[in-house]
Amino acid sequence: MNGLMMHEPLLISALLRHAERHHGEQQVVSRLVEGGIHRQSYRELATRARQLARAMAALGVQPGQRVGTLAWNGHRHLELYYAVSGMGSVLHTLNPRLHGDQIVWIAEHAEDQVLCFDLTFLPLVEALAPRLTGVRHFVLMADRAHMPAQTAIPNLLCYEELLAAQSDAYDWPRLDENAACSLCYTSGTTGNPKGVLYSHRSTLLHAFAAALPDAFNLSARDAVLPVVPMFHVNAWGIPYAACLAGAKLVLPGPGLDGKSLHELFEAEGVTLSAGVPTVWQGLLAHVQGNDLRFTTMQRTVIGGAAAPPAMIRAFEDGLGVQVIHAWGMTELSPLGTVGVLKGTQRDWSAEARRAVLAKQGRSVFGIDMKIVDPDGSELPWDGQAAGELMVRGHWVAAGYLGAPQPELDWFGTGDVATIDAQGFMNITDRVKDVIKSGGEWIGSIDLEHIAMAHPAVAMAACIAARHPKWDERPLLIVVRKPGAELTRDELLAFYEGKVAKWWLPDDVVFVDAIPLGATGKVLKNVLRERYADHLLRSA
Amino acid sequence: MNGLMMHEPLLISALLRHAERHHGEQQVVSRLVEGGIHRQSYRELATRARQLARAMAALGVQPGQRVGTLAWNGHRHLELYYAVSGMGSVLHTLNPRLHGDQIVWIAEHAEDQVLCFDLTFLPLVEALAPRLTGVRHFVLMADRAHMPAQTAIPNLLCYEELLAAQSDAYDWPRLDENAACSLCYTSGTTGNPKGVLYSHRSTLLHAFAAALPDAFNLSARDAVLPVVPMFHVNAWGIPYAACLAGAKLVLPGPGLDGKSLHELFEAEGVTLSAGVPTVWQGLLAHVQGNDLRFTTMQRTVIGGAAAPPAMIRAFEDGLGVQVIHAWGMTELSPLGTVGVLKGTQRDWSAEARRAVLAKQGRSVFGIDMKIVDPDGSELPWDGQAAGELMVRGHWVAAGYLGAPQPELDWFGTGDVATIDAQGFMNITDRVKDVIKSGGEWIGSIDLEHIAMAHPAVAMAACIAARHPKWDERPLLIVVRKPGAELTRDELLAFYEGKVAKWWLPDDVVFVDAIPLGATGKVLKNVLRERYADHLLRSA
Repeated sequence: MNGLMMHEPLLISALLRHAERHHGEQQVVSRLVEGGIHRQSYRELATRARQLARAMAALGVQPGQRVGTLAWNGHRHLELYYAVSGMGSVLHTLNPRLHGDQIVWIAEHAEDQVLCFDLTFLPLVEALAPRLTGVRHFVLMADRAHMPAQTAIPNLLCYEELLAAQSDAYDWPRLDENAACSLCYTSGTTGNPKGVLYSHRSTLLHAFAAALPDAFNLSARDAVLPVVPMFHVNAWGIPYAACLAGAKLVLPGPGLDGKSLHELFEAEGVTLSAGVPTVWQGLLAHVQGNDLRFTTMQRTVIGGAAAPPAMIRAFEDGLGVQVIHAWGMTELSPLGTVGVLKGTQRDWSAEARRAVLAKQGRSVFGIDMKIVDPDGSELPWDGQAAGELMVRGHWVAAGYLGAPQPELDWFGTGDVATIDAQGFMNITDRVKDVIKSGGEWIGSIDLEHIAMAHPAVAMAACIAARHPKWDERPLLIVVRKPGAELTRDELLAFYEGKVAKWWLPDDVVFVDAIPLGATGKVLKNVLRERYADHLLRSA
Repeated sequence: MNGLMMHEPLLISALLRHAERHHGEQQVVSRLVEGGIHRQSYRELATRARQLARAMAALGVQPGQRVGTLAWNGHRHLELYYAVSGMGSVLHTLNPRLHGDQIVWIAEHAEDQVLCFDLTFLPLVEALAPRLTGVRHFVLMADRAHMPAQTAIPNLLCYEELLAAQSDAYDWPRLDENAACSLCYTSGTTGNPKGVLYSHRSTLLHAFAAALPDAFNLSARDAVLPVVPMFHVNAWGIPYAACLAGAKLVLPGPGLDGKSLHELFEAEGVTLSAGVPTVWQGLLAHVQGNDLRFTTMQRTVIGGAAAPPAMIRAFEDGLGVQVIHAWGMTELSPLGTVGVLKGTQRDWSAEARRAVLAKQGRSVFGIDMKIVDPDGSELPWDGQAAGELMVRGHWVAAGYLGAPQPELDWFGTGDVATIDAQGFMNITDRVKDVIKSGGEWIGSIDLEHIAMAHPAVAMAACIAARHPKWDERPLLIVVRKPGAELTRDELLAFYEGKVAKWWLPDDVVFVDAIPLGATGKVLKNVLRERYADHLLRSA
């Protein structure tokens, strides 16, 4: 017997309709690539998205077909989010920081029909256009005044002219909620990129979860500024959750340096932000270096990589900004766990609470997780046993574009983690980065965090180096702060009392820079290629 | 093209599994009907729910069949919530405050197979059992020690013995998310009761929405005490939202007087409560009369009827407790709107903000609304135009048990409301209670709130009385506070400057008591029967 309730599909267009009808006066503020600040209401966003949907249909974009973007966080990118998904087509956000060859490979693999891009990327698209043979239309996300007089791109279209040619008389179709809405490729360090294809249903349930008090805690009283790019797992779902909650949305464009961000935070009364640790490092340096403050900022979500404890302390103790330490993946839309205390931990000591908050957090409702040993047996939740983290839930990928795995039961994250008795998960390593020393595992992340806490260290990575007796031993790769002095022995002495003796790194290599991937992650495979034999050589 | 995401049905069993795995140590505290306080963890709740599901199956309860309850808010009722719905059967919460004839009619209409009841209701069930011909098993929700030595109920079963006979080896079935999970009859003041049949999907989406920051704002740091009964629209979804959020759940049993509630609030560190205005009136009287405070209470949800502005002031200004003014219906699971300010209203004057918060609030995501004139034409959102409130969304009923309306597009609430430019809805009356004076509408609720704000008034109702010239005119029915003196002219003078002159009530009838229905609402149809001709008689 079925319930007798109205049945509406869970659709992205419903988010926009809600924002338009119930938060129509709320603002979307964008720092434009072309310069200046752009303001529109959710009512205007909805109007323009309807015009854009008509424009895309006029270009021949069919339901299910992909529309690619190369764009910063801005209002036109947001309009594409809602128009393309809302009309039943698939928004494909390309990462402009990837190598040109990868961008071409991904756009061709995704079969992008249209490519929309910001002015910043005009030279890039001009260079790649001859190889993007599947793309039928190129659209520059600008007005006529910013269109190039000459370009190598054939029939380059002007975004604002496409919109101006259309009325907003458009009804969002009633789609199947399992229809694909957006596509994002993972930036693996090895192999070809893999496309994660989100559905309307998965995106809506993720938006509900992301807005919950124990996740981003997003309300109509917030002004949220996603520093995390809209080409990086849909800016962690914030463009959707903001409409759900009726929050003010502040989109920073390309200016992600500390000064630009701090100015925008203050000017727009931002209460909540979200981004990867490397961005916050720049912001913290600017704020601390200039003795600045945050007037309205209440909390910031840090994810994408583990937040160093020193960074958490700088935000919380120094600046009064709550750090929400979160963990996710492209394959998780991306939200998996959030590090927010429980009521049962209220009476814990400050030290115990700090230790819990340095972990990646606990499951939001909708995601289940477990840790398993190499045989697949479930490991206990004792905060000690480390195994591969497996997840499942409403917004977890079941395969990749061209390689679906509909029967997938648990998704293997490739992360090594512990889970404690309160359900707080802590990532100790990537499965492929873990250091296997004499049959035991050493987690590289803890060792990196200790090095990063040293005042003379700008950046540190820890990799497995080959060892004649122990198979592998930890090796530190370190960038010193400008002007700082630090020796190998001084740094190793800094580890005393902080880790078990057999975890102590065997050596330190000082370098000028550590190679980073397109999403700001350390390329450990590159480091291993260079330094895996370091211990053998120095022995 | 479909997305490539895992597909899990939205099931009530997933809430319990989440609470067990990720908030296993969190507590459910119950004040028992038999006396004393009972404590269990979510882990124990889950174990006992599995045992109970096996016990119900052993009694022959099939998927889709109804299990009735006559019970207060307590842990066994909570176990029934999860066990019965989780196994694919339908939990039917009966309102014990209804007349016995109605209870029999409803239980027979619902075809309840099993009836579980608290010790309080043993005499009631003994009286009704001979007429409950469809009920195959009667279960007393108690242990052996509290079973009656003798009873007229044939083969009365003991809840704790049923559980003790079962192991907890039970896997929750993977149901269709549109399957019915629970059933609640509306207590209309006219006609037969109507059964609203909720689905797993509607209940899960409602739980997400209820936990949002702009709704109940429920987190794992909260201890929530639903005063609203679990037989009244599933205690507004709090039993589900608590598991979703991992909140501590405090269930007050039958003691809903001010003293019992205040003691439990303080003893269990309650941060959030929810109930109808009449309950809060008793609590406020106790707290104010004994010069007490709330140590941990942060906010309370008031719904079921409009919260008088005086009550909101008493909580917010006097006791530092935020009032969350909410509006809903049995047919809305029940959440429709919540009165929480937007960021765009932050700079409004205190008076303007107070006026907004006295309204019933704005749509939570998942519910859309509009107001229409008698022809069905949509009316503007100007805070002035009043029309019937229509709603639609994921957790809105599409018909009633035995009378489904699968194609229902908008549900007519029977309420008359205005909606302002910010989307805040204000109920001015019931369609059937509105006073039609000379072709214009006068809302009875505003007139009642003014009377209730007079210090000598304990309770007031305003009804339409027949009038020879204007068709209908407002008539006040008033209960004075014990010992208070108040004349008709004094009360009418109190209206001056507060309403338009033509809204002024024509007369006041002082009475000893105003008749209330089983859910605490004023029975205006009874008042109209008695007093509709009062003006004609007194003219």
